[in-house]
Amino acid sequence: MANLISRRRFTIEWAHCDPAGIVFNGRFYEFFDWGTWSLFEAALGVKPADLAGTFSIMGIPVVDASARFLAPARFGDPVELASQISAFRRSSFDLEHRLTVGDVLAVDGRETRVWAVRDAADSSLIKSERIPDEVIARFQVQ
Amino acid sequence: MANLISRRRFTIEWAHCDPAGIVFNGRFYEFFDWGTWSLFEAALGVKPADLAGTFSIMGIPVVDASARFLAPARFGDPVELASQISAFRRSSFDLEHRLTVGDVLAVDGRETRVWAVRDAADSSLIKSERIPDEVIARFQVQ
Amino acid sequence: MANLISRRRFTIEWAHCDPAGIVFNGRFYEFFDWGTWSLFEAALGVKPADLAGTFSIMGIPVVDASARFLAPARFGDPVELASQISAFRRSSFDLEHRLTVGDVLAVDGRETRVWAVRDAADSSLIKSERIPDEVIARFQVQ
Amino acid sequence: MANLISRRRFTIEWAHCDPAGIVFNGRFYEFFDWGTWSLFEAALGVKPADLAGTFSIMGIPVVDASARFLAPARFGDPVELASQISAFRRSSFDLEHRLTVGDVLAVDGRETRVWAVRDAADSSLIKSERIPDEVIARFQVQ
Repeated sequence: MANLISRRRFTIEWAHCDPAGIVFNGRFYEFFDWGTWSLFEAALGVKPADLAGTFSIMGIPVVDASARFLAPARFGDPVELASQISAFRRSSFDLEHRLTVGDVLAVDGRETRVWAVRDAADSSLIKSERIPDEVIARFQVQ
Repeated sequence: MANLISRRRFTIEWAHCDPAGIVFNGRFYEFFDWGTWSLFEAALGVKPADLAGTFSIMGIPVVDASARFLAPARFGDPVELASQISAFRRSSFDLEHRLTVGDVLAVDGRETRVWAVRDAADSSLIKSERIPDEVIARFQVQ
Repeated sequence: MANLISRRRFTIEWAHCDPAGIVFNGRFYEFFDWGTWSLFEAALGVKPADLAGTFSIMGIPVVDASARFLAPARFGDPVELASQISAFRRSSFDLEHRLTVGDVLAVDGRETRVWAVRDAADSSLIKSERIPDEVIARFQVQ
Repeated sequence: MANLISRRRFTIEWAHCDPAGIVFNGRFYEFFDWGTWSLFEAALGVKPADLAGTFSIMGIPVVDASARFLAPARFGDPVELASQISAFRRSSFDLEHRLTVGDVLAVDGRETRVWAVRDAADSSLIKSERIPDEVIARFQVQ
């Protein structure tokens, strides 16, 4: 068995880039977010906008993130983002997002997200909840 | 009587700018949005996040916008944004947003927004509603 | 003869949307920018990042823009952006960008851009220059 | 001796927030960038836009970043960002960025940046260079 990997190909746009002519670092976390939603749609067969409703959660918020910026991504560069889950825990999980420009690994990102619900007593509070086994199983490929 | 004007001073940041070293045009609409919320807070004495709840609306969404980009705003430029309402109609209103760099008018923006509520029959739909007279009155200064 | 139209299909992402659950208005100008570059690549056969170098210009900056927001675009919506040039003048041109969600026109945008070069005497200044006839001709389809 | 700390106070804006009503995680890296430039201006007395020219560098690009998101920051929240350098090495340095909402630490961020110059042989390449001792000294307060 192996992890399901979601791959997205896109092009670096003018508005992604800063005065140095390369992608501003904060933009990569939008790309990681795209990758996460694509991965969940591929695994669970549920449209991103329907994920929360389908599983009675409020969402899968990021609680920890990191990235190494190894090579620049420039305006016009065709890139590929490969996203996969590297670990599931009781109520949280880790994702890896690797963005490549051609054969070069440009950004190596990681996120930890939680399977989150709104607190029954105070809907402004968020708490984590056990990830269903059937969800976890869907991120494995034979 | 004259219109209340909200003035915000801030500095153009690195992440606001594109590879030409100037503010990407779409960013100015974030600034216009800041100006609108500041103006409403100044006029109504209500925190932006409390506006919808206080007046039983869903918000004041933009339905029309335009901008002329007359001079560049660059990384590090200190700018001033002056925002005011130029016209109230039954359920919509026009705003002017003028961004200056020193004495130079860099961007001349306009927005039309509606006083919007969620449709009682279908909460995914938005409809406009009559703007209360007491709201309109607060945007005038003696 | 008719105008060349560039069509891009993409999905509205989480990070495009604001607390009302719809695309923040300023984001649409990023989409218009994507559409413009795609149209130029389709017409001229030149990669966006090579456009300035190929034609000895500094770029095609936006000097005027407007948009009507007719219907919301929400997280997960598949959309199509159709971009075309509606008018060429000596050194500037107008673009139309129509973003549809299914059969519904959600945003009707317009930009005016200039064919711009850096001033020979002062490279911090930008001035417009005559658009070559052979460029204009490439935006027509038989 | 202690580290110089730059503090910025600002308000969370509508356009910073996502459909969950909280700041989208990628936005915090823009705030970290603001904090870094403010810190450098406070320490070196050089305007951000003049930093590269003053020290004959191309900039101080981020090569590594991480953040823990401990509590939400919501539309309208007044926040404070405290930024300081936690370590200098030969040609790179670490920054800490702590964003608080009232007394609550909401985001604990870290960046590693390099003191970077363009390669003399190939200006598209970036390489790190020794940070001048007099620069390092300016980030200490008596």
